Amino acid sequence: MRAEPSAPLTPAALPAQAEVLVIGAGPVGLFTVFQLGLQGLRAHLVDALPHTGGQCAELYGDKPIYDVPGVPVCTGRELVALLERQIAPMAPVRHLGRRVEALSPPETEGGAWQARLDDGTVLAARAVVIAAGVGAFVPRALKIEGIDTLPPDVLHYHDAPVPPDTAVVVHGGDDPAVLRALALTADPDHPPVVLLHRRDVFQAPPEALAALSAARAAGRIQVQVGQPLRIAAQGGAAVLTVLDAEGQEQALPLGRLEVRLGLSPRLGPIADWGIALERKQLVVDTARFATSAPGVYAVGDINTYPGKRKLILCGFHEATLAAFAVAERLSGAPVALQYTTTSPRLHQRLGVAPVVAAD
Amino acid sequence: MRAEPSAPLTPAALPAQAEVLVIGAGPVGLFTVFQLGLQGLRAHLVDALPHTGGQCAELYGDKPIYDVPGVPVCTGRELVALLERQIAPMAPVRHLGRRVEALSPPETEGGAWQARLDDGTVLAARAVVIAAGVGAFVPRALKIEGIDTLPPDVLHYHDAPVPPDTAVVVHGGDDPAVLRALALTADPDHPPVVLLHRRDVFQAPPEALAALSAARAAGRIQVQVGQPLRIAAQGGAAVLTVLDAEGQEQALPLGRLEVRLGLSPRLGPIADWGIALERKQLVVDTARFATSAPGVYAVGDINTYPGKRKLILCGFHEATLAAFAVAERLSGAPVALQYTTTSPRLHQRLGVAPVVAAD
Repeated sequence: MRAEPSAPLTPAALPAQAEVLVIGAGPVGLFTVFQLGLQGLRAHLVDALPHTGGQCAELYGDKPIYDVPGVPVCTGRELVALLERQIAPMAPVRHLGRRVEALSPPETEGGAWQARLDDGTVLAARAVVIAAGVGAFVPRALKIEGIDTLPPDVLHYHDAPVPPDTAVVVHGGDDPAVLRALALTADPDHPPVVLLHRRDVFQAPPEALAALSAARAAGRIQVQVGQPLRIAAQGGAAVLTVLDAEGQEQALPLGRLEVRLGLSPRLGPIADWGIALERKQLVVDTARFATSAPGVYAVGDINTYPGKRKLILCGFHEATLAAFAVAERLSGAPVALQYTTTSPRLHQRLGVAPVVAAD
Repeated sequence: MRAEPSAPLTPAALPAQAEVLVIGAGPVGLFTVFQLGLQGLRAHLVDALPHTGGQCAELYGDKPIYDVPGVPVCTGRELVALLERQIAPMAPVRHLGRRVEALSPPETEGGAWQARLDDGTVLAARAVVIAAGVGAFVPRALKIEGIDTLPPDVLHYHDAPVPPDTAVVVHGGDDPAVLRALALTADPDHPPVVLLHRRDVFQAPPEALAALSAARAAGRIQVQVGQPLRIAAQGGAAVLTVLDAEGQEQALPLGRLEVRLGLSPRLGPIADWGIALERKQLVVDTARFATSAPGVYAVGDINTYPGKRKLILCGFHEATLAAFAVAERLSGAPVALQYTTTSPRLHQRLGVAPVVAAD
């Protein structure tokens, strides 16, 4: 089960000052952190998901990738694990399960960008690298009549404590829905949970499906097959009307509705940050991967330039040149290339012992 | 010991027709072969060295590289081995130990480039990708007075059979020189060999150094400490004059001079191919990595463009976009991006079983 994205996962006293802010913790965002580290710059890393890996972990975590150079085959999850090992010496400050709600330009020339996260944290950064892929992965919303009229604290997309004696409907057919229903019925004092899905087939690991069968047999979970139609107030309570498999309407009392319909990427507020877009992509140059906003760079699937191909390996190159450009911007001087094989300075940043010369 | 570069290493009946010619078999050349293979194009691969790996194998074969994305650490040799595994399904036609002496443009629009190798082979290719790094690695030449006056078959930079009773001087202080001297004295009928080096310290694996000591004790190898000064004819024979450690001139009879001073990169004929250069780099655009010559692309350390950094990982990106550009040029149509994770066509080209969908 996922950690609750809206709960604080980072220390309470967040550093307000970040040297460089990296938005997006997919493979390209992670490699950006690495390249910034080689430049001696520590990154703050924000991602809407509660874990790193982005699309790569969400969409093909278990599927093979064959075109990462030097890695003949790996799954999305394995690639993320390899990158985590590689960037470990750079120790980014992580803000996971957080979205950047707003990004404001510096008030003075050469000043810091201000990023406001969805928990209210404000980060000030002299440079920002957007590696947000197809956008933030956010829970797919349930859009039915009356959903906006629900009282506060009834509709939930993330796990959070449930008051005793609440009538809970969990909506969804995959792991997150099944696991959530099971978790809620683990407390024997909790009333039975309704698991609502369009058909009586669930996608989850075998042990979760076995537990679901047992909970159904014990009357702890009631599966309701059907499509949610609308929500209405009835007396003081909310009622969810569902169209069942026989085409009949069923009314479900609703103390709480937990929607678990999976995640979908949303460009979200990035489109509102005043940076030049072309078909929802951030336009960059190919020397620095700089956007139209001074001090803001874009790498990976979210950017566009002549010849752009949305491949992870291309994002690695973009991340590298962007890190050089950030270092040159912050230092105000050209940065010479050094090699990780031979440079004592890079060895120090990597935390490795220097190579002893053979001659 | 290296194979003899001027001996044929590829089948005698070389195919005259190559779809795409890749010049240079370093990491970036190897990955170009891979990306061309994903495009359904089979490459011919030429390199001056008798093995793949280029600079990466020659200059830091045993040294660690930390910035290949997804490979937290590997040596140059390990990286080459990983890439060889990755490109195996693409089965390039290899022309190793061969240099491209001349590259001639197509005689007709859309025709084939003609590449003449140093063994006289001519390859016709509709597109050429130059991944030649810092140039071809060729033996470092000995430049002393009179060396041009030596009769044919006296001066050798590569291993080749030695006629009986020849007075051989091997010049150099590293593995290739030591191993060559040992190989020549393996035949008990061969006269003692002179190993000439500026000081009595040799860099070679411990077992080679032990064999050298034994051969010196047995009088099979005579080490001459000194600097070669000049070569002159004396009677009918050649004589090499050396300045020894005491500052005295010594005359060495010279039936054969085997120079093993290591390899140095040479841009060589590439500079004569009529392609736009800037400070000895091939100028390319960043969308296709095309040079000024239509159908000729350049990737890796040999190219230049705004923002260029000479990093292997950047070369991987360049190789990928160049392969797309080659495919579009040869097909005359735009090529859509496919992913190795999901595309049945790419799975076929990779020789892997398709992924079974989870749902």
